[in-house]
Amino acid sequence: MSVEQKLRKSIRDVVDFPKKGIVFKDITPIMMDPELSNEVVDHLFEIYKDQNLDAVAGIESRGFLFGYPLAMKLGIPFVLIRKKGKLPYDKISHDYDLEYGSATIEMHTDAVGHKHRVLIHDDLLATGGSAEAAAILIEKSGGEVVGFNFLVSLDFLNGEEKIKLFSNNITNLVTY
Amino acid sequence: MSVEQKLRKSIRDVVDFPKKGIVFKDITPIMMDPELSNEVVDHLFEIYKDQNLDAVAGIESRGFLFGYPLAMKLGIPFVLIRKKGKLPYDKISHDYDLEYGSATIEMHTDAVGHKHRVLIHDDLLATGGSAEAAAILIEKSGGEVVGFNFLVSLDFLNGEEKIKLFSNNITNLVTY
Repeated sequence: MSVEQKLRKSIRDVVDFPKKGIVFKDITPIMMDPELSNEVVDHLFEIYKDQNLDAVAGIESRGFLFGYPLAMKLGIPFVLIRKKGKLPYDKISHDYDLEYGSATIEMHTDAVGHKHRVLIHDDLLATGGSAEAAAILIEKSGGEVVGFNFLVSLDFLNGEEKIKLFSNNITNLVTY
Repeated sequence: MSVEQKLRKSIRDVVDFPKKGIVFKDITPIMMDPELSNEVVDHLFEIYKDQNLDAVAGIESRGFLFGYPLAMKLGIPFVLIRKKGKLPYDKISHDYDLEYGSATIEMHTDAVGHKHRVLIHDDLLATGGSAEAAAILIEKSGGEVVGFNFLVSLDFLNGEEKIKLFSNNITNLVTY
């Protein structure tokens, strides 16, 4: 079985979460399977090993799960993109709209160097709001967004439209 | 230099965060150093490889950073302990007191099997409130808490007192 097939078998549909009418893609069964987990990291490594990345940026908190192991395997820094009020040091922030209300994400000012080539990683691409906000933070810091990676993409939400302005090097392992 | 010495050099003091009078131990510079990151995972692996663990449980969200790579290297499941409302599937929860107010953490009911030997991991041991709550969740699920691991322990807050009732196999890489 391919990694994609294994992921499809592992990812669990949870109906009516977080609210009625939504089918949530639960990735936690992947974490319960160490063999598959290692295979996902190896697979991501193969995709990105020759892209001259300077850093992987992961979006809190599920983006930490594969983002950090991938960065470690690539031998490059891992940049934490966190929700408001969590990062302690000098930081930049960006507000963005959610379906209801808004959110703010933050990044340390010293996390991304000038012209550093950064891959943005998260577990899921939905409407693309947080990935777009992350890209804005990277560019504000003087870095270059050279790609986006997601475990799962929900294509019917058209998130790619929002982020391809930053980079059209967009990959995901499973599409629904 | 030992791993401990390298971590001491890397961890950054941020004064008056999250509020005046507190010196926050910022671990994000470790994530910026892939060599040290890998060394920490290897070091944790050496400590736990012969302890017959069935799972590592990591506390959201900084407990995901080293908890998942450690579980992957040990070849055992990683259990996510998350803040209220984040986990989609059937779950159990536990409320605990903070200095001001309270918090709730949750775990999927199928994450820890009967009598499974679980190591609880987080980045920091402070007063021990969230580690204790995590231990209660593991025991509620029928699992056995066979140890606690933290990158950093703030000894003056006496967190060990609170959690040693569950297991006195408590390790950390740096103590302040």
